[in-house]
Formats: sequence, C-alpha cells, structure tokens
Amino acid sequence: MQRNVVIRILGILLMLFSTTMLPPIAVSIIYGDGAGTDFAIALMFSLLTGLAIFWPNRHAQAELKTRDGFLIVVMFWTVLSFFGAIPLYLSDIQNFNLVDAIFESFSGLTTTGATVISGLDNLPHSILFYRQQLQWLGGMGIIVLAVAILPMLGIGGMQLYRAETPGPVKDAKLTPRIAGTAKALWFIYLGLTIACALSYWVAGMSPFDAISHSFSTVAIGGFSTHDASIGWFNSSNIEIICSIFMLISGINFSLHFVAYRQLSIQPYSRDPEFRAYITLITLVFIICFVGLFISQQFNFRESIYKAIFHTISIGTTTGFASSDFSAWPGMLPLLLILLSFVGGCAGSTGGGIKVVRFLLLFKQGMREIQKLIHPNAVLRVKLGKQILPEKVSNAVWGFFAAYVAIFVIIMLILIADGMDQVTAFSAVAACMNNLGPGLGEVAANYSSVSDLGKWLLCLAMLFGRLEIFTLLVLLTPAFWRR
Amino acid sequence: MQRNVVIRILGILLMLFSTTMLPPIAVSIIYGDGAGTDFAIALMFSLLTGLAIFWPNRHAQAELKTRDGFLIVVMFWTVLSFFGAIPLYLSDIQNFNLVDAIFESFSGLTTTGATVISGLDNLPHSILFYRQQLQWLGGMGIIVLAVAILPMLGIGGMQLYRAETPGPVKDAKLTPRIAGTAKALWFIYLGLTIACALSYWVAGMSPFDAISHSFSTVAIGGFSTHDASIGWFNSSNIEIICSIFMLISGINFSLHFVAYRQLSIQPYSRDPEFRAYITLITLVFIICFVGLFISQQFNFRESIYKAIFHTISIGTTTGFASSDFSAWPGMLPLLLILLSFVGGCAGSTGGGIKVVRFLLLFKQGMREIQKLIHPNAVLRVKLGKQILPEKVSNAVWGFFAAYVAIFVIIMLILIADGMDQVTAFSAVAACMNNLGPGLGEVAANYSSVSDLGKWLLCLAMLFGRLEIFTLLVLLTPAFWRR
Ligand SMILES: [K+]
Ligand SMILES: [K+]
Repeated sequence: MQRNVVIRILGILLMLFSTTMLPPIAVSIIYGDGAGTDFAIALMFSLLTGLAIFWPNRHAQAELKTRDGFLIVVMFWTVLSFFGAIPLYLSDIQNFNLVDAIFESFSGLTTTGATVISGLDNLPHSILFYRQQLQWLGGMGIIVLAVAILPMLGIGGMQLYRAETPGPVKDAKLTPRIAGTAKALWFIYLGLTIACALSYWVAGMSPFDAISHSFSTVAIGGFSTHDASIGWFNSSNIEIICSIFMLISGINFSLHFVAYRQLSIQPYSRDPEFRAYITLITLVFIICFVGLFISQQFNFRESIYKAIFHTISIGTTTGFASSDFSAWPGMLPLLLILLSFVGGCAGSTGGGIKVVRFLLLFKQGMREIQKLIHPNAVLRVKLGKQILPEKVSNAVWGFFAAYVAIFVIIMLILIADGMDQVTAFSAVAACMNNLGPGLGEVAANYSSVSDLGKWLLCLAMLFGRLEIFTLLVLLTPAFWRR
Repeated sequence: MQRNVVIRILGILLMLFSTTMLPPIAVSIIYGDGAGTDFAIALMFSLLTGLAIFWPNRHAQAELKTRDGFLIVVMFWTVLSFFGAIPLYLSDIQNFNLVDAIFESFSGLTTTGATVISGLDNLPHSILFYRQQLQWLGGMGIIVLAVAILPMLGIGGMQLYRAETPGPVKDAKLTPRIAGTAKALWFIYLGLTIACALSYWVAGMSPFDAISHSFSTVAIGGFSTHDASIGWFNSSNIEIICSIFMLISGINFSLHFVAYRQLSIQPYSRDPEFRAYITLITLVFIICFVGLFISQQFNFRESIYKAIFHTISIGTTTGFASSDFSAWPGMLPLLLILLSFVGGCAGSTGGGIKVVRFLLLFKQGMREIQKLIHPNAVLRVKLGKQILPEKVSNAVWGFFAAYVAIFVIIMLILIADGMDQVTAFSAVAACMNNLGPGLGEVAANYSSVSDLGKWLLCLAMLFGRLEIFTLLVLLTPAFWRR
C-alpha cells in the first residue's frame, strides 16, 4: 500500500467533488428556492477537508498498483457518499435525519435510486437537481469502474474484458490507460445524456425535468423529481423515449464506442452478451404482457406499454415506474425483481450480476449436462469466438456464490430486525442489484425501514455497485499485510 | 441405450416392490384395521405389471452402461412412486384424491416427508406403517444412489468420491461394485434402524411407534404416525434420541463403514465434510438458542432442547417437529429453511445440496479473494489432503447454479398459480431439499396446495432427490440419441 499516494488522491477526489455543489447552487439561485446556502456550506466543507488531506501529501506521487486500486474505488463511493449527504442533511426535508441523508446519498452515487423521501414534488428545485446529479456522477464513476478498473483488478471474471493484456497483470501501471478510456467513454455518456434530455424536452417535459430525468436515465439510476416517477407525466411518448435510453444505457459502453468508431451496428449484433440481453428482456416482456393482458388489469395497448416499460426499467435495474408494478398479478412482481439480478450488461451503468455472467453460467451448466452424457468429450465454453479460460469461469462462479451469500446474510439480519420476509427479500434485491424500488413495504419508498436496516441497505448498495469482491477484499486481513 | 435390459430391470424392480406390501398386510391383520385388501390389490397389480414387463425381456442380459444408470435411477423413483400410491388411493382417507396419493407416495420414497394428510392419528395402522416403510425403502435407495451410483455417473462433483478409479469411467461396468457396496451399507442402515427402534421403545414409545419412527429417522424422512410429529410424545428423552439418530444418519455412510471396520472414530474426525457438518449445525443451534431465549418463547432449558432438536431436524432435512418452528421469532424460521439447503453430508440419507458442496464453494470463494490480492500466486483448493480437480469444482458450481435455476422456475409457476411468496419459497425449498415441512400455509401440511402445485412439488422432490442432473440429463435430446 502506498498510503500517501492514496490519501493524496482522496484529497483530490474530495476537492473535485466539492465543485459539484456549484450546479445546485446555480439552480437554487435561478428558482430562488433558498437552499443555496446548504450547498455552499457543503462545498466549503468538502473543499477544505479535501485540501487538508491533500496538502501534507501533495508531493506523494507514484505509479498506482493493483492493490491501491481496490482502496481508491471503495473510497470513491463511500467517502463521497458521506460527504454527498451533507447538503441533504442541512436541508429542511421533513422527517429526515442523518441516516436518511446518508441513505439517499449512497442510493444516488451507487445509482440505486431507492429513496426515503415521500413528497418529492414539494422539495426545492436545487435539492431535486442535486439528487439527479448524484446519480449522473455515480454513473460516470461506474463506467470507468466497469470498463477500465474491474477488468484490471480481475473482479468476478471481468478480466474477460482485459483484451489487450494476455497474461495476468503484475501490479501493472493503472493510470495512463484508465485516463484514455475514461475520456472516450465519458464523451459517449455525455452525448447520450444530451440526446436523452432533448428527447424528453421535445416529448413535453419542462427543461428542468428533462435534464433531471436524463441524468437518472443514462445513469440507470431511477431517481425522479416526482413521487409518481415517470408515471407523473402520463405520456406514452415519454415512456417510449425513456425505455429506449434505458435500453441503450444498459449496453456495454465499449460496444457503443466501437460502434461509433466504425459507424456500424455490427459490433452490437456480433456481441453474445448484447444478444442475450435483448433475448432475455424480450422473453420477460412477453410473459409480463400475457400476464397483464389475461388479468385484465390493463387493456391490450396499455398491457404492451406497461410491460415494455417496466421490463426494461427493472431489467436494466433503472427502477423507474409508470405504474405500481408491485401490485401486478401473480408472479410478475417477483419475476421482475428476479430479472434485476441479471441486470445490465457488463461495462454499462446497469446493476445486478450482469448479463455476461449469467450467460457464462448458463453455458457452463449446459456443458455439465453434455459432460454427463459424453464423459470423455473435451467440451469448452466459448463466448463468441473466445474460449473461456478456466480462471475466468472460476471467478464468475465465485462471484455468483459470494453474491448469494452476502444477499442471504443481509436479508437474515433485516428479518431479525423485524422486517417481513417479502419486504426484506425485495429490499436487499433492490439495493444490492442497484435497482431501487422493491415490493411490500418498500414498493414506494424506504422511509419505513429502521435505522439499522438503512445502514445495512447502504452496505448492500455498496456491495452490489463494487461487484462484491472489491469491498470483500478490503475486509480480509491479507489485504492489509505488506 | 439397451432398452430391453432396462425394461427387464424395471420389471424386476416392480416385482420386488410388490413384496413390500406384505408387511403392511401383516400389520393390518395384527390390528384388524380392515385396510389389508387395499395392499393385497396393490401387491397383485404391481406384481403382475412387473411380470408382464419382465417376461418378454427375461433373456435380455448385458452389462449396464453409464447411460442406462441414469434411466434406471430415475425409473426407480418415479415408477415406484406411482405404484406406491395405489394402496393410499384405494384406502378411505378423507378428502384424498389420486394426486394426493401420488404426492404422499413421492414424498415417502424421496424421504421428503411432506404430507397432505391431516388426521394421521385416526388412520389405520397398516397405512401409517406403509408410509413409514416407504421412507425407509427410499432411504435404502438413496444410500446406494449416493455412495455407489452418483459418484460413478459423476453427478454434481460426486466423482470426488470415486476414489478407486483414477481417470474418468468409460461406460464402466456398474453392476458388481454396486452390489458389494450396497450390501455393506444396507447392513449399517439396518443396524442403525434397529438401534434407533430399541432406543425409542426404551424411552417410552409403543413398539409400533418405535419401529415406525425408527424407519423415518434413519431415512431422514420425517413422516410420523401423529399430526403433532415427535412433539406428540412430549418427552425430552425421545427428542434427544431422535436428535442423535438424525445426526448419525446425516453423516456419509461410507464413513460409518470405515469407522466400523477400523473400530475407530478417527475416520470421522479426519473428514473435512463431517467437521463442517458439525460446525454448521453447532453455529445455527447457538443462533436459534439465543433467539429463542431472548424472545422468551421458551425458558432456558426448553430453549436449548428445542434449538438442538429443530436445528438437527431441519439441518439434516429430516423435518420432524416437536413444536411449530414456523412460528419462531424473527428470522429463525427462514434461517432453518436456509440451513436445509445445505442439508446432510454426501453419501447420507439427507437431502439438500450437501455439506461437502458448500464446503467446496466456500473454499473456492476464499481462493478467489486470495487471488485478487495475490494475482500471480498458484492457489489450489484442497479437501483434506486431496487437491480438488478442476472438473469436480466445475461440476459443483454447475450443480449449485442448476439447483437455483430449477428452484426459481418451480417457485415462479407456483406463485403464478396463486400461492403467496413465503409459502411458495418455503414449499419449494422443503420439497427440493427433501425436508418436508415449510412455512406459511405449508407449515403443518400440504393439503391446501392446488393439484398443479402438488405435481410441481413432486417434481421438485424428484429433482432434489436425484441431485438435479440425473433427471435433467433425461430431458435433453442428446441423451436419447444413439
Ligand atoms: K437504479
Ligand atoms: K425429510
């Protein structure tokens, strides 16, 4: 560990983060909503803390090593989430204590989108804007994390995407490559956000709502400026636009990059994960549509709309709602929650276990069956044209098992703390998959959850966002040994 | 596939099975309960069907191949379960239709112990005896399946226990080795049963109850002759005896065999699975004890008793109850249901995923974490002194994923069919883990489940008992190709 270097970066991160209070201050001034001082205080506090941490270590410069990478990633989400809670805590939202502010901030930066606030429509514009912006910033972080950092750290089989380096990376130089990749992908991310905001605006949203929702759409975040979420606009055009941008944001951003460079859609159609992603969403859409139509809860046209919108929203782990899907008939609510476990594609802003991992598990399961029938055949699992290395498949399996284990432990503690089974299951699923809305008591918001429960769900969000192992590694003594 | 040979064996199995109607006939005569003719009819029907199948193929003899093994194992449990339903269907149990009879028979032979009957205490002795005997016979089948057949078929990593053969078995000769192993293990099984029956009798059970419960104890079955299960006897001595024999029956029978031969307990203490089994049960016992004691549902002494008895009963997947554990406080009921996923040791009569598989998953998970910290270290997973071959670990992971997938699919269909989430989750868990009692509406019995639900749960029992893949393989077209 190069402690000084890591602390120096933390300082820089905090100072950079403090500048993100400026847009909400501007919003506050424009709308005259009186919440500007809260953000100014948060800005100063973050800036000074950052400076105090940075200054003594300002000369500490060295190549970052793999191990530092884990620490920086975890710090990014935890420390910024805590500092991000400051303006929310200072504001005068009703029935809102420190834990609530921290929960909301974690939920924002991890792009989970679970909220403890009911009465969004009455909040100051600056606060609303800030929440949306938190998700957008979180989304920026995730793209770098997913496309550049996780493959390098080798988390949960993501070394699969480390195409350039043939062997294992020996504490390789992290910095230069990340910077280059990040720039290209942020460009796409920004482009998507602008396109999304314009589309929303054309479809009838106010400029404020259009920008706000574009933030939480491309970040697969799901925060809204209205309690009724996307349903507030009551517009099928907006739902369609939202569906399209959620679907796009759930795709690996590297694919977007290659497609943009080649000006071709071939990179998509050739990608096995993309095909699995579309297949799965189509399949669940059909089941939801049939279920909704048969139950006569909606008419034919509405059944199609609602089924498409919610399948994409939950399937990508965005968590927008245009109706109360937790009240859908039969097994549909649970099916959607289960779909969120699959989540978006690797390298997207989506949460969950990721489509590619499920694809690999499925292929390996099929191979096991083949092996039983032909015990002596040599059967290899392929992804596209690439033969899957044993170490990647082991990492994916390990990821899956660790996901289940962490899930069960958090769920059991929540139930011991007094939550009912259905709520606990869906709350942990919604937070760990970075989805947002759950079933039961957390279908609308998380205000009824106990303080302990909120802390645990913050942990679940963090575990999910950091793909379990980034955080788990830090909890082992071996990590801290020199 | 050697169709004639397989059909010939099916005929023999049926004829053998028909003779198992004789003890209930004897019981019926002793108690004069009037149900004897039902069993006589079932005997004749099974015998004649068996003969009709056997006779045309009586000369078909050939070495069995691996592929035939899958078919015979699946046939053993399905065909015999259907024929085993005959006397139950013929009897005049109230509100008992054909599906109920089949469910009860599957539940017996798979040693699940889920029942659709309420009012056991009023049933004829012969019917009660027959249910217990079904479990005992199922237990005999499982031991051969688990110790001899699954390792040879290579199901879910169980080739781990194929110590004698170094390489993969090339459609090896199945028959002679199985016969030898089976005899030795059945001897132990019989010995345990007798010891258990005598202990129950000494502790105060009637001879009938003692024999009946010894059957379902060593088979890890959980059927009882009373609605109140073991709780009916209201005797802590009986609960302790029951706990001990459940704990013993949940251990790998090969271990018992080696320990018996060497007259030593070393084989146990050296076995990593045994140590994990005891550790896990102890851990859950402590949590249950603390939970029960804190909640003041029981006093100190009772809390210990109840916690020990139920942890062992659910942990080994026996499913006996001495109180309504589904009404225990907080997360304890769910914790116990989750413990049943781990289940007994491989090679025991217990159900679930098996301790050794969880041990391997845990070790591999730990290795993944180590690998992230030391990317270049060569880390191997060991079980005792044995280095785990890659193909075994792949098989175990495949097993785990297939288990989860089948579980989720059956649960979703049950919920779509109208079952609530908690009941559906626990019902599928209880049936697939061959546990028996669930939570919610299936805490006492399964009579409220729909016909479709009962069929699905029969399927779940079968999937669980046949370790998923034995059945799954038969559902692939590749299996049926020559
Ligand atoms: K989300
Ligand atoms: K059982």
